[in-house]
Amino acid sequence: MALGKHILAEFKACDEKVLNDIKTIENLLLRAAKEAGVFVLGSSFHRFEPHGVSGVVIISESHLSIHTWPELGYAAVDIFTCGEDVKPEKSFEFLRDELRSLDASFETISRGEL
Amino acid sequence: MALGKHILAEFKACDEKVLNDIKTIENLLLRAAKEAGVFVLGSSFHRFEPHGVSGVVIISESHLSIHTWPELGYAAVDIFTCGEDVKPEKSFEFLRDELRSLDASFETISRGEL
Repeated sequence: MALGKHILAEFKACDEKVLNDIKTIENLLLRAAKEAGVFVLGSSFHRFEPHGVSGVVIISESHLSIHTWPELGYAAVDIFTCGEDVKPEKSFEFLRDELRSLDASFETISRGEL
Repeated sequence: MALGKHILAEFKACDEKVLNDIKTIENLLLRAAKEAGVFVLGSSFHRFEPHGVSGVVIISESHLSIHTWPELGYAAVDIFTCGEDVKPEKSFEFLRDELRSLDASFETISRGEL
């Protein structure tokens, strides 16, 4: 039995402007949480100079995080969920489309196999 | 070249009281960030009923997160860092000791291999 399901997503060849806009990235991560069917408890986002955004959404079923490198067209996203009813793959598909990634992949890692 | 180093740590057989105390967990994750030599930008922690704590520390080099299941003596910790000078393994060792885990392990995943 695994307590959690952790999706590590790699989004390459993304739209650089989207990756560098903190408001858009925050909005997308919150919408990605909604796509997965999870309940949002809080969030924290930061923009870096000269470029890049980091952010985390805490959900009742764990967290989503994003770190962007706009200058490289790359974003690293984690979707860590618990429970049977949530659909983190939907978050992945949503973000792939919204970040306009031409090269997106993910791996799934089981957490808490007790 | 990898942009980030992502440590996924599994802490089993931990001290249940430590895992259920939000103030202690927040303090430990902030100190773990300091052990790694990273700069903290912000943090967000939540306590669940009847038990469990989730929290994230946003750092200039990415993030640390923790989710605890005190009733099972288990905590899932992620340490996502960038840069050559940071030492996320030190965070792992610090948390292993402070959570009093008798069964701790981690795997390291390269993120952003462009």
